[in-house]
Amino acid sequence: MTTNSATPTPPADSLPFRIVEKGTLTSPRGFRVGAVCGDIKYGGGRKDVALIISDFPAEAAATFTTNQVKAAPVRVSMRRMKRGKMRGVIVNAGNANACTGVEGLENAKEMVKCAAKAVGCDEREMLVCSTGRIGVQLPMDKVRKAITDAHAALGDNGHSAAEAIMTTDTFPKELVVEFELDGATVRIAGIAKGAGMIHPKMATMLSFITTDAAIDKATLRSCVQQAVDFTFNRISIDGDTSTNDTVIVLANGQAGNETLTSDHKQVGLFQKALQYVMKKLARMIVEDGEGISKIVEVAVKGGKTMRDAKSAALAVARSMLVKTSWCGEDPNWGRLMDAIGYSDARVREELVEIYYDGILAVANGQPSKTPFEQLRKVAQKKSFTITIQLHLGDGEYNIVTTDLTEKYVELNKGE
Amino acid sequence: MTTNSATPTPPADSLPFRIVEKGTLTSPRGFRVGAVCGDIKYGGGRKDVALIISDFPAEAAATFTTNQVKAAPVRVSMRRMKRGKMRGVIVNAGNANACTGVEGLENAKEMVKCAAKAVGCDEREMLVCSTGRIGVQLPMDKVRKAITDAHAALGDNGHSAAEAIMTTDTFPKELVVEFELDGATVRIAGIAKGAGMIHPKMATMLSFITTDAAIDKATLRSCVQQAVDFTFNRISIDGDTSTNDTVIVLANGQAGNETLTSDHKQVGLFQKALQYVMKKLARMIVEDGEGISKIVEVAVKGGKTMRDAKSAALAVARSMLVKTSWCGEDPNWGRLMDAIGYSDARVREELVEIYYDGILAVANGQPSKTPFEQLRKVAQKKSFTITIQLHLGDGEYNIVTTDLTEKYVELNKGE
Repeated sequence: MTTNSATPTPPADSLPFRIVEKGTLTSPRGFRVGAVCGDIKYGGGRKDVALIISDFPAEAAATFTTNQVKAAPVRVSMRRMKRGKMRGVIVNAGNANACTGVEGLENAKEMVKCAAKAVGCDEREMLVCSTGRIGVQLPMDKVRKAITDAHAALGDNGHSAAEAIMTTDTFPKELVVEFELDGATVRIAGIAKGAGMIHPKMATMLSFITTDAAIDKATLRSCVQQAVDFTFNRISIDGDTSTNDTVIVLANGQAGNETLTSDHKQVGLFQKALQYVMKKLARMIVEDGEGISKIVEVAVKGGKTMRDAKSAALAVARSMLVKTSWCGEDPNWGRLMDAIGYSDARVREELVEIYYDGILAVANGQPSKTPFEQLRKVAQKKSFTITIQLHLGDGEYNIVTTDLTEKYVELNKGE
Repeated sequence: MTTNSATPTPPADSLPFRIVEKGTLTSPRGFRVGAVCGDIKYGGGRKDVALIISDFPAEAAATFTTNQVKAAPVRVSMRRMKRGKMRGVIVNAGNANACTGVEGLENAKEMVKCAAKAVGCDEREMLVCSTGRIGVQLPMDKVRKAITDAHAALGDNGHSAAEAIMTTDTFPKELVVEFELDGATVRIAGIAKGAGMIHPKMATMLSFITTDAAIDKATLRSCVQQAVDFTFNRISIDGDTSTNDTVIVLANGQAGNETLTSDHKQVGLFQKALQYVMKKLARMIVEDGEGISKIVEVAVKGGKTMRDAKSAALAVARSMLVKTSWCGEDPNWGRLMDAIGYSDARVREELVEIYYDGILAVANGQPSKTPFEQLRKVAQKKSFTITIQLHLGDGEYNIVTTDLTEKYVELNKGE
C-alpha cells in the first residue's frame, strides 16, 4: 500500500483524472434518479426517499456495517449481494428500520418489491437502504406512495439523491470524476451522508457510487473493499458504529471501455479514481460532523505491526479527554501519551515522538524544547495533523477525526 | 462471586460492621498523617503534599495502573511492593511526574529518600504517589521542604490527607468502618481522589487505605485484588485510564486480632468491610466526576461469558452517543442496542431485553409497549440503572458510569 492519507492530497490538476464540475450521480451514462418528499419523518417538502437506477443491469459491490445489530434493509441487501447484477437501490432517510423485528424485515422486502415493480425488474435486482431513528416501524403507506412518486420522477436530476439521503447533514455530499480508459471516457460519481455515529467498521453513513465503467464483478469488489478500507473506514467522529452503514457501487459498463479485470493495465487508474471519490466524500462527512470545530488527522508510524498502529490511532481518536483538549486548542500531548499507553498497541514510552503538523512536541517520551506557544499555534488551526512515531517497527495507520465540543453534546442530547 | 453492584447497598444498620462517624485515615491505631501546602502547583495555602505513615511496619498490598505509560512514582512503588513490610507513603498532587524520563525517576526516588530519612526508616519501606499535570518536572526544592514540613506535621489529623490529594475533586472522599475480630476492634479507613480520567483498569485515581487488622501478606493481597476488581475497576467516567492510578493498603496489626489467613473463619468479614469501603469511595469518585449530571449503573446479564457481559457494559459506558442521550434525559435505547451490537460481546438482537430501573423498554430486540413517558421519568432521575439481558448465558458485569455533558467538555478543554 502506498496510500497514506497523512500526505496532503495533490492538487487536482496533477491527478490522473478530472473533477466533473457540477457532476451528479446521473453523470455516468445509463443512470437515473428520482427523489421525492415521502413525509417519512421530516414533513414540509423535505426530500427523503430516493430511487437510484441503472437502465442496464450493473455489476455491484457493497460493504455493510459490522455491527451485530443490523437494520432490516442491511439484512435484505446483504442477502441480495450474493447473487448477480443489480438494477438499483431504493433508499429512505428519517427512519432506520432498525430494531423492528419481523415486521421491519417484511417492510424492507416490500420496499424492494415496490421499487422493482415500478422499475419493471426482478426483485432480486433491487437493493434497499434506510437511515434515521431506530426502533420505529416505517409508515408503509407513505413509503409505497413515495416509491411510486420517485419512479415517476426518474430523470437526470442526480443531485436530488444527495439531498434526499441527508439526516442531520448540513450540506449534500457529492463528487464526480472522469478519465479515459481505452479511449472511452469513464465517469465515477458518488454521494454520501454522515453526520453522527461515525467510526471505522463503517459509520452511520450511506454512500452510493455509480460508474459507467465496464469491470468484472470480482475486480469491482476488490477495488471497492480496498477503497473503503482506506477512506470510509478511516474516519471517526464519535466512535459509534451504526446499525445501517452501507456503501453500494454500481458499474453498468455503458462507457464502452474494454472490461476491466484484475490484470488489466489500467485497473490501478480505476482504483485510484474510485478511492479518490470515496476519500473526498469521507472528508466531507468529517467536515460535517455534528458540532465539530476541528478536523485532526492522527498518523501513527513505527508500530510493531499495522494492528498496533491502528490500536494506538483509534485510542487517540476515541479519547474524550484528547478530543476535548483539541476543542480547547490545547496541545496537550500528555493526554496523547496516556491514550496510546492504555491502547492495545505495544508502546515503549522512552521511544515515543509526537509531532503537531511536523513540529516536535515529544521526544523520547518527554517534552521537546519546542515553545508551548508554537505548538498552540498548530492546535489553533481548523485542521492539523498529529504524528505519533512509536519506533518499534513499520506499522502505520492514519485516521481522520474531530474534536469533542459542547455543541456535539447539545446536538446529541435528544433525537 | 455473590457481589452484584446492581443490588442496592443494604442500609448501614444491616451491615456486619459499623460506619465510624467523622473517622479519618488515622482512626485505625498506629497511623499518623502530615499534610502541608508545598506550593507544587496551586499555591495559596492549598495542601498538596501528604505523608501517611504507620508507626509499625505494615503488610502492604497495592494495585497500579495498567497503562503502559506509567508515571515515575508508579514505577518506583511497583518495584518496592515486591519486597516486605512498609512504613508509609509520600504523595503529592498538582504534578503527576509522568513523561519525565530519567530525571523524573530520580525525583520520585528522592521523594522516597527524603520521606524515609525524616521518618527514620529504610528507603525500601516507603512508597510514593503523584497526581496532576503530565510532562512537567517536579519543583524538587519545594518538594523536599514540603516533605520535611509534612513530617513535622505528623499527627492524628487524618482528614488533611483526604484534602491534600485532591486535584479537580470538589470534595474530599473518606470513609471508616469498624468491626470485631476475635474480640478485638478492627478499623479500616480509606481516602480517594478521582474526578477525570476514570475508567476500568484503574482510573486517574489514588486511594489509600489504612487498617490496624493483623493479616498475612498473601491474604491481604488477595482481598485487595478482589475488592479493587469489584469497585474501583467498575467505574467509568470518560473511558480514559491514567498513568498514575494507584491503590495502596497498609495493615499494621495493631488491633491485636489473631492474624487473618486465607482459611481464618472471619476473613470474609474483613473482605466484605474492605470492599465496602472501596465501593463507597468509588461511588464518591463517580459522584464527583467532572461536570456530570447523571450516575448510571449499567448491568449486563445473560452474556455468553462474563467477558462478553463486560464488553457490552464497557461499550455502553464509553459510547459518547449513549452518554449524551443520558445528559438529555432521553431513554434512547436504540443507542444502547447500537453500542452492544458493535461491542465484542456476542449479541443476538432478537433475544435482547433492556430495562430502565426494572421497567421493560426493549423485548426481543424491539420496543416494548411501555409508554415513552414512563421511561423518560426514569431517565430524568439523577441516578438510575439500565439492565441489559442478552439471554445467551450466565455472564454478568456491572459498571457505574456517568453522562457526557457540555460542562465536562468545558472543564476539560484546557488544563
